Amino acid sequence: MRKVYLDNAATTRPHPKVVEAMQPYFTELFGNPLSFHSYGQAAKKAVDEAREKVAKLINAKPSEIIFTSTGTEANNFAIKSAATANQQKGKHIVISGIEHHSVLYSAKAMEKLGFKVTLLPVDKYGIVNPEDVLKAITPETILVSVMHSNNEIGTIEPISEISKITKEKGILLHTDAAMSVGNIPVDAAGLGVDMLTMSAHKFYGPKGIGALYVRKGARIVPFIHGGIQEDGRRAGADNVQGIVGMGMAAEIAMEEIPERVKKITPLRDKLIKGLTEKIEHIHVNGHLTNRLPGNVNICIDYIEGEAMLLFLIKEGIAASSGSTCSSKALKASHVLLAIGVSDATAQGSLLFSLGRDTTQEDIDHVLTVLPPIVERLRAMSPIYNK
Amino acid sequence: MRKVYLDNAATTRPHPKVVEAMQPYFTELFGNPLSFHSYGQAAKKAVDEAREKVAKLINAKPSEIIFTSTGTEANNFAIKSAATANQQKGKHIVISGIEHHSVLYSAKAMEKLGFKVTLLPVDKYGIVNPEDVLKAITPETILVSVMHSNNEIGTIEPISEISKITKEKGILLHTDAAMSVGNIPVDAAGLGVDMLTMSAHKFYGPKGIGALYVRKGARIVPFIHGGIQEDGRRAGADNVQGIVGMGMAAEIAMEEIPERVKKITPLRDKLIKGLTEKIEHIHVNGHLTNRLPGNVNICIDYIEGEAMLLFLIKEGIAASSGSTCSSKALKASHVLLAIGVSDATAQGSLLFSLGRDTTQEDIDHVLTVLPPIVERLRAMSPIYNK
Repeated sequence: MRKVYLDNAATTRPHPKVVEAMQPYFTELFGNPLSFHSYGQAAKKAVDEAREKVAKLINAKPSEIIFTSTGTEANNFAIKSAATANQQKGKHIVISGIEHHSVLYSAKAMEKLGFKVTLLPVDKYGIVNPEDVLKAITPETILVSVMHSNNEIGTIEPISEISKITKEKGILLHTDAAMSVGNIPVDAAGLGVDMLTMSAHKFYGPKGIGALYVRKGARIVPFIHGGIQEDGRRAGADNVQGIVGMGMAAEIAMEEIPERVKKITPLRDKLIKGLTEKIEHIHVNGHLTNRLPGNVNICIDYIEGEAMLLFLIKEGIAASSGSTCSSKALKASHVLLAIGVSDATAQGSLLFSLGRDTTQEDIDHVLTVLPPIVERLRAMSPIYNK
Repeated sequence: MRKVYLDNAATTRPHPKVVEAMQPYFTELFGNPLSFHSYGQAAKKAVDEAREKVAKLINAKPSEIIFTSTGTEANNFAIKSAATANQQKGKHIVISGIEHHSVLYSAKAMEKLGFKVTLLPVDKYGIVNPEDVLKAITPETILVSVMHSNNEIGTIEPISEISKITKEKGILLHTDAAMSVGNIPVDAAGLGVDMLTMSAHKFYGPKGIGALYVRKGARIVPFIHGGIQEDGRRAGADNVQGIVGMGMAAEIAMEEIPERVKKITPLRDKLIKGLTEKIEHIHVNGHLTNRLPGNVNICIDYIEGEAMLLFLIKEGIAASSGSTCSSKALKASHVLLAIGVSDATAQGSLLFSLGRDTTQEDIDHVLTVLPPIVERLRAMSPIYNK
């Protein structure tokens, strides 16, 4: 059976060069970078080089990159540590209503420490209006967090415009760019953000490694305390092979991003066009052009996303029904609700996320098998009435 | 040149079977365990199996294992989350004065949130007296943390005796067993602890993965917020290959621990005996028998540890001068100071940490080359006066 992987938003298949680059750090180069001897120094050199590559990918300085275990940790780090470090100035945090749960729940956790959190509205495409950021800011505001692109609906946010506001107000700006970095061009310095989240396994790097960009001069406190790793800002023995893998993924991305975008975007558009033509009562979520090249998020009325997923699996197609991190909770996506999708319609959501390995044939396969699946499920549905 | 690795306390060389076990999870089995489809389910199965192996190694239930990125993260998690979860009962934490910095600085970080921290004294071997724990406890005490074995001097602490006290008082007990697990038998249930820290790369597993045992019923809050991974207690995409590697390291350890102890202990004792016979003004730190099989920590008067390390490197020997996580700080070890070593003597500390690959020849090589190095350095030392 044809196997079609369209769940790159959940995780990507590591690039073969990434896997290869990591191998020596499991065997002869297994040292701890803090050790004085050659085992340690070889590991330190590898970490330094990887840091340079990750920095280069987002136009940052190597000293501005702090490696973390995941994008989620980087988001927790950014929100909690920036809030803690700047609480003398005020205790108000502004985030968008469609942030990943790692930003949303980190902000909520700070509420228990006396912080106030404002959730920004988004329009029907999921776009934050910079004017709403301006309106939300009070003299107490110390931190704004708006994601670079949304993990469910793929919408890309106007971060440069938001940063003009936060800069003028002297407020820190964090952006969760976990879905963007390595897949589309991201220029941390150019965006004018103070902190930016990355995740290696979203761009063909290994799992278990991410990073937080922290602009030189931005004030944060450590999130994980202990040894002197990462300049004392994130303690714990370095995940050397993971860092090396992320560095290699960054190096490859630097080169491949233009061709990735050029290849994946028309496949995305073909899938959207084909599905909307072939299936009735279907809605495309997110903006049609201002979106991640690999993101196809749709809602199909009168049937459940999970049911469609099961039938797709039988056809060899791996997809998702919204955010993988919370899909098992079976609640309607907070992102879809925020863009005005009804609770009922949100139940029928499907996320196809394309990647560098996706082919025309993969898309054709989905276009062939999904419409009859929808028809079959609707025939069984008590709420569907053609 | 002969290469001798005696820095297993900093990190160990991953077992070949560990490296092998991880490989498929970089390639065909690259899915996200939360995904619905076969890629995801294969990854989930692997994580579940690894969790069982890690649980078995410490006599715990799989549901009591929470994977983290490092032992340091597990220590931060234990201290900060247990303190936060139980602060209604009181705001007093008791830790030993020789804890790893990840415990010490986590406790210090809680002081900023209104907690009080008591540091327990230790005797000249580094052993905590359970009576001192009892004395330190007040009605405000909610958490005690005493390490299972010390990372610098190898001393093993009387955790079972301490847990009798904390249980009777209804206080949570955490133990940092990062140096013990996989190297000596550790029975979490038998010890009577509520939380226990593990680190894979200390027992021939990969870097970038650790775990926290949390006894069923022990109250903690999440440390990293976000998705529903690890039962909602530690969010972030699973480091699948790291978890698989840790599981394999645990499985191997289950089998190998008796022979590891049997092989390494006499090598340790041979090294200690040889060095103390051949070098004058030398001190062995920690208890002679109640210590980790692989730990040889000594202080050599009138010379600096770092200078000896450099000369040892020239002879192909990789060792350390105390804790790797803080060695670059060039301050005297807080552990050595706590057991009564003078600041001057602490400067001449050396840590040889033996492992499963250590041979008689390795030990002979150290015994051959270190005494002349000491003689040579002392000849150059202005403070040495034979």
